[in-house]
Amino acid sequence: MHVVSYRYREACHLGMLSADMSSIISFDISEAKAKTGLLALIESAPSLLPLRNSDDPTPLEAVEILAPIPHPRRNIFCVGKNYFAHVQEIATAGFDIADSRGKAPEVPIVFSKLPDCVVGHNAPIVLNRNVTNQLDYEAELGVVIGKEVKCVSAKEAMDCVWGYTIINDVSARDVQASHKQWLLGKSQDTFCPMGPFAVSKNLIDLTDTSIKCWVNDELRQDGNTALMIFDVPSLIETISAGITLYPGDVIATGTPAGVGAGFNPPKFLKNNDTVTIEISGIGTLVNKVMSK
Amino acid sequence: MHVVSYRYREACHLGMLSADMSSIISFDISEAKAKTGLLALIESAPSLLPLRNSDDPTPLEAVEILAPIPHPRRNIFCVGKNYFAHVQEIATAGFDIADSRGKAPEVPIVFSKLPDCVVGHNAPIVLNRNVTNQLDYEAELGVVIGKEVKCVSAKEAMDCVWGYTIINDVSARDVQASHKQWLLGKSQDTFCPMGPFAVSKNLIDLTDTSIKCWVNDELRQDGNTALMIFDVPSLIETISAGITLYPGDVIATGTPAGVGAGFNPPKFLKNNDTVTIEISGIGTLVNKVMSK
Repeated sequence: MHVVSYRYREACHLGMLSADMSSIISFDISEAKAKTGLLALIESAPSLLPLRNSDDPTPLEAVEILAPIPHPRRNIFCVGKNYFAHVQEIATAGFDIADSRGKAPEVPIVFSKLPDCVVGHNAPIVLNRNVTNQLDYEAELGVVIGKEVKCVSAKEAMDCVWGYTIINDVSARDVQASHKQWLLGKSQDTFCPMGPFAVSKNLIDLTDTSIKCWVNDELRQDGNTALMIFDVPSLIETISAGITLYPGDVIATGTPAGVGAGFNPPKFLKNNDTVTIEISGIGTLVNKVMSK
Repeated sequence: MHVVSYRYREACHLGMLSADMSSIISFDISEAKAKTGLLALIESAPSLLPLRNSDDPTPLEAVEILAPIPHPRRNIFCVGKNYFAHVQEIATAGFDIADSRGKAPEVPIVFSKLPDCVVGHNAPIVLNRNVTNQLDYEAELGVVIGKEVKCVSAKEAMDCVWGYTIINDVSARDVQASHKQWLLGKSQDTFCPMGPFAVSKNLIDLTDTSIKCWVNDELRQDGNTALMIFDVPSLIETISAGITLYPGDVIATGTPAGVGAGFNPPKFLKNNDTVTIEISGIGTLVNKVMSK
């Protein structure tokens, strides 16, 4: 199931894509619930959630697509340095902020992004030159938690996963470096494009899902979830060891090689650049940079 | 005004302390609003919020005090290394995780704690030996934001402050060190005692407010807000440069010298230890460590 949170005729809705991906069959829920996006579905047993018996589904092209969870209830969990080729590229380029000299981390590096920087497909990424001169992209698989869980083993961790989405972990490299801890460099307003869809976990094979990212027409990242240093179950085991995870929590699982900071000279984002991220089985997330 | 969020006769309430601090005059709001704590007051103009015309205020000793904002809407902003003597003690003790060699940071170090680890006065701090063997305390002044603001200068920043509370930025030093980024080490369940009261900004002189912390009967921290490296207006200027701050956001402003990790040998928290934090003008926050 591909779930889509969207605005149509000035109201918010939640729906699922039709089999041919061209239209949306909406769920019959209040607008207040629809505003919470995928959370409304997660918090109802799917079998209890009636689909509107609609003979005329809404064409996908007619709606404004919102982030699957337009306003997460707390910060997004994010994983740093979870693909070895990315660890190496930033070390070589001198952007190795945690100073690991190109070695893979021994345990996951986990930081967060503010929930208010989440934006949807086609929303602008604001380049604020008063804050950063090193705006960068990071294509990532986002995991959406479906059940409350604490202290779960990797072996049983997948049971709490609802599904997946695409996240662009937009980063201001200069802010990230100067403040040591990454919250500010990762949480500037508009720094978390998410979507366009969320897909239920049965649709994704974590051992072989491609993650690609283009800036304009140039393919910059071409990775695969098989290359994660810490896989999704391990990440959930680590985070949940002493922290309760709740339905609707999102974990951005780290980015493959090919970020702007990894090139020599670096290729940071400029005004009017278009960042396109494609994860097979989910869809394509597009956001344009808008200088402020 | 001292605001208190509390449970009494199985319902949540919000109120203000009487002049002699022995009883609570409750605000006349729905329980749903009262559950949001101080947020309910911040989001109403105070003049519009009727006080219950009560001849029998509730005795403070009869209630269960909750955190002033029992469930913040997003992670708590936290500032690291904001008192020079603390920067030096952790460098000397070998706990200088950001490797600054005892130098003051050039810009504020900002990280976050999950909102779900907030607990109130007298709630236990859980020591989970499966996660940490280095449980530590950090007494801090918490700033509560009262107005939405973005890109504000230090000179005008105080206008967006509603007031202050006490925060214990409980930390698992081993988790903090091994994961490089501090989110997990700072966000284990129960790691953010807050309260017992929130006070309006007119009651606190940021140039001279004492912060003290005892573990059992031993005075460990004896600092003063005058010693902050980055003062409250500067912190707000830095964070708000590209990030919108919202009413109810909380900023924990860093801890003075005297944390457990700063002693040789370190004095980490043990089962049944009682941590008592007193900030002049606010009150005294007490939490006991409970081994799990």
